[in-house]
Amino acid sequence: MNTVKSVPNAYGKKAIVVDWGTTSLRCMLIGADGRVLAEQESQGGIQFIQNARFEAELMAVIDPWMVDHGPLPVIALGMVTSRNGWVEVPYIPCPAAPSDFAKGILTREPSNGSTLYFLPGLTDKSRVPFPDVMRGEEAQIVGFGLEKELTIVLPGTHSKWARVTAGKVDAFQTFVTGEIFALLSQHSFIAKVAGDDSGDSDWEVMCHGARVARETEGQDSAFLTQLMSVRTGMLAGELVPSQMLSYLSGLVIGAEFRQAMDAGWFAPGDRIGIVGNDGLNGRYRRVAQVFELDIEDGGEQAAVVGALKIFAEKWVMSR
Amino acid sequence: MNTVKSVPNAYGKKAIVVDWGTTSLRCMLIGADGRVLAEQESQGGIQFIQNARFEAELMAVIDPWMVDHGPLPVIALGMVTSRNGWVEVPYIPCPAAPSDFAKGILTREPSNGSTLYFLPGLTDKSRVPFPDVMRGEEAQIVGFGLEKELTIVLPGTHSKWARVTAGKVDAFQTFVTGEIFALLSQHSFIAKVAGDDSGDSDWEVMCHGARVARETEGQDSAFLTQLMSVRTGMLAGELVPSQMLSYLSGLVIGAEFRQAMDAGWFAPGDRIGIVGNDGLNGRYRRVAQVFELDIEDGGEQAAVVGALKIFAEKWVMSR
Repeated sequence: MNTVKSVPNAYGKKAIVVDWGTTSLRCMLIGADGRVLAEQESQGGIQFIQNARFEAELMAVIDPWMVDHGPLPVIALGMVTSRNGWVEVPYIPCPAAPSDFAKGILTREPSNGSTLYFLPGLTDKSRVPFPDVMRGEEAQIVGFGLEKELTIVLPGTHSKWARVTAGKVDAFQTFVTGEIFALLSQHSFIAKVAGDDSGDSDWEVMCHGARVARETEGQDSAFLTQLMSVRTGMLAGELVPSQMLSYLSGLVIGAEFRQAMDAGWFAPGDRIGIVGNDGLNGRYRRVAQVFELDIEDGGEQAAVVGALKIFAEKWVMSR
Repeated sequence: MNTVKSVPNAYGKKAIVVDWGTTSLRCMLIGADGRVLAEQESQGGIQFIQNARFEAELMAVIDPWMVDHGPLPVIALGMVTSRNGWVEVPYIPCPAAPSDFAKGILTREPSNGSTLYFLPGLTDKSRVPFPDVMRGEEAQIVGFGLEKELTIVLPGTHSKWARVTAGKVDAFQTFVTGEIFALLSQHSFIAKVAGDDSGDSDWEVMCHGARVARETEGQDSAFLTQLMSVRTGMLAGELVPSQMLSYLSGLVIGAEFRQAMDAGWFAPGDRIGIVGNDGLNGRYRRVAQVFELDIEDGGEQAAVVGALKIFAEKWVMSR
C-alpha cells in the first residue's frame, strides 16, 4: 500500500471485509481503529469461480492475514451471497435498519477456525411487476449513513436509487443504465462508427447529451427515440465519431435522472447522495448538476463502513 | 419460384426493383402486368461489399435477366443510397408526396445499356435534437398507400412510426426497439440465463410483457427500470429461462407502443397500418391488440409496390 487508509470501524475490533461481486473480489483487513492494514483486489469475481471453489479462492488471499492476526471474523457481501454465489442469503425486505440486516446474516465455519458472516441483500417488494433486489449496495447505503432523510443514487451496471429515512432504507428502484450504455457502445449499429472512448470523456458533449435527456419535451422525449440521436447527430454533422460515446453516456445517464425525477426521487434544487466507486461518480456528479442538484459524496469506502456497522449490530445482539 | 406472385405495377412496363439494405440484397424482375417474373435474395448486404464493388455484385444477379428481356430500368432503394452505399442520394424532407421522391431520384448508366434509378430517403427535420432519417421505409409507406389519413408502424431494428395524410408522408419518428432487443437478448447480464428463443415465441408471455409496458403507472413505469423485470421476474420464480426472451420482446415492443401512444401517434381504439416483412409483424400485431388497436396489414411487397409508384411518377414527369 502506498497510503495508509482508514475507515470508521463501528465493530471496534480487527475484522476482514470481503466485497465479492460478479466480476471482482476485494478483501480488506481492518484494524480495531479502522486503519486498513492490508488490502487485495483481484479479478476473481464469482462468475469466474469453477466448481464452487469459493473457499479455496478466498483463503488463498486471507489465510496469510489469519496467520499474522489469528482467526478473525470474515464479513462477506455482494453477489457471493446470491443464488449463483457461495451461500445464498435471503433478502431482507424494505424498510430495513442495520439491525434487520444483522438478523439476516448467515454464518459458516471453515476448517481454519475463523467464522464467515454472509450479509443479506435487500428487496423492495412494493415494486411492480416483480420485487426489486440488490446485493452489496445496501452495505454502501448503510455506510453512507441513514440519519438524514435523503435520496441516494448508486451508479453502476444496474444503478440503484434509494430513499433513506429515520434510520432505515425505505425503498429503492433499479435503473439498468450502465448495461444499456455498455451494450450500445460495444455492440450497436447506432454507435457503430463511434470513436474510441479511451476513458477521456468530453464533459461538454456529455452534458449536451444529459441536457437533451432533461429538456426534450413532446414526441422526441421518447427514450427509444432519443437513443437514435447518437446516430442522427453524426449523420447531421453535429457529432463527430470521437464525441459519440460521451454524448451517449450523457444521454443515458440523463435519461436515468429524468426517469428518476419523473418517478419522484428528486426535484431540481434537492440535495442527493452519490455513492459508489465504479468510476462513474464523476459522470453522475456532472449530470446531477445538469438537473440542478446539490451533491453529498459518499466516498469510496461506504461498502466497508456499512459492512462493519451491520456486523457491529450482530455483535451487540449476540452478547 | 414455387408460386406466381403479383404486385400492382404503377409503371406498367417491365422493370427491375433492387431492395438493397445493410444485411441483404433482394432483386425482383417485375412484368408489365405486375407479375414477379424472377426474384433473387442474397446475404450480399452493403456492409459486406468490398472495395465498392456494388456494380459487379448487382450485375451478377440481373445481367441474365437483361439478356432475356433487354436493358430494363433498375430501381434501387434502401441503404445502397446512403453515404455508406453506392450512390448517396440526398434525403427528401417531410411532408413528401411520391412526386417529391421522384424528383429526388439520381441516375447512373452502367456499361450494359441499362439505367439505374436510385431513390432518395426521407428526413423529418422537425425532430429534436437532430433530424430523423429513413431509407427504404419511405417506399414501403408509399406502397402501403397515402390515400387515407393513418398512422403506420414499420417494425424493424429501428422501427418507424409515420403519419400519412392527404397523399403525403407528413412526419415520422424512429424507435430503436429491435436493436435494444437484439443487444439485451444476445449480450446482456439481464437476460444472461434466458433460454434459447428458437423463434418459438410464447405469445401469452410476450403479451404479459406488453401489458406490463402498457399498464404500469408511477415509479415502475420508468423504461430503464422495466428492463430489470426480465431478471427480477426470473429471480422471483415468475419467469422461467425459456420465457425470458418472449417476455423481453413483449416488454420492449410494448414500450415502443407506450412511448408512441404518449407521443400522440395513436389512441386506443384507433386503426393503424403495420408494414414490413422482417418477421416482426406477428409480434407487432399482437402487441397492437394489447393496446386495443385495429390493424391494417401492409403485406410483404409494399417496398416493391412503392418503388414502382415512385418510378411511375418519374416516368410521367420525364415524358
